[in-house]
Amino acid sequence: MTGILTETRTVTVERELAHPPEKLWRALTQPHLIAEWLMNNDFAPVVGHRFSLRGEWGGVLDCEVLVVEPSKRLSYTWNHVHEDRAYNLTSVVTLTLTPTAKGTHLRMEQSGFLPEQKQAFHGARHGWQGFLAKLDTLVATLD
Amino acid sequence: MTGILTETRTVTVERELAHPPEKLWRALTQPHLIAEWLMNNDFAPVVGHRFSLRGEWGGVLDCEVLVVEPSKRLSYTWNHVHEDRAYNLTSVVTLTLTPTAKGTHLRMEQSGFLPEQKQAFHGARHGWQGFLAKLDTLVATLD
Repeated sequence: MTGILTETRTVTVERELAHPPEKLWRALTQPHLIAEWLMNNDFAPVVGHRFSLRGEWGGVLDCEVLVVEPSKRLSYTWNHVHEDRAYNLTSVVTLTLTPTAKGTHLRMEQSGFLPEQKQAFHGARHGWQGFLAKLDTLVATLD
Repeated sequence: MTGILTETRTVTVERELAHPPEKLWRALTQPHLIAEWLMNNDFAPVVGHRFSLRGEWGGVLDCEVLVVEPSKRLSYTWNHVHEDRAYNLTSVVTLTLTPTAKGTHLRMEQSGFLPEQKQAFHGARHGWQGFLAKLDTLVATLD
């Protein structure tokens, strides 16, 4: 017998933020703040909670919370159902916060891209850079 | 007998551009230019051509070209299939170009939003303002 190998790829984007993890955590977990830097949503920081992320142009992602470790780690599925395999995305986003002398090191990993999903893979890399830049700007405005 | 009335709403965004319609038309119909202001795509200005618009975060729209009147009018479907009716979008985008003394008046209409799709409706209004601003910036860089 031979096993079936499903090779997937992971996008990793890291950013140093001049804010403590606790402050960053709020922006990652409060729906009205998530809407500011990511997308409209009905998120709740509860493992098993299902929510959607809604793009301004009508696209919708189906998500489920997997991991909630306050101020340390947040993980959720990031799925987009499509009949065409090239566009059917089943991925997991994990955000890891590590305190540093100057604030927080944020690591975003999105795993699950199939080899043929090159555009989604490259799009995610570019997209997350933009999302995290907006997150940084937003957190700077919080009390 | 009574008919079934399906009420839908239309988002309209207009913008004055300091460029002639012919130049704007290129940005509306060439895939590498569309990618700059809207999304990655496999568009072709041929009635009946099916194409997709792919968001950086993994979302995908299914589209079909409906109307191609060079430098005057372009229309295509802008659909997002989702099992939840609130997120299942079946819409039509129509871009109408009218020459003015200073350039072009661009009118974007997106029709087909159901009454319960309030967030998609408001998101589209905001989203198109951003898309058309990027389009304006892009066209300014073309020869």
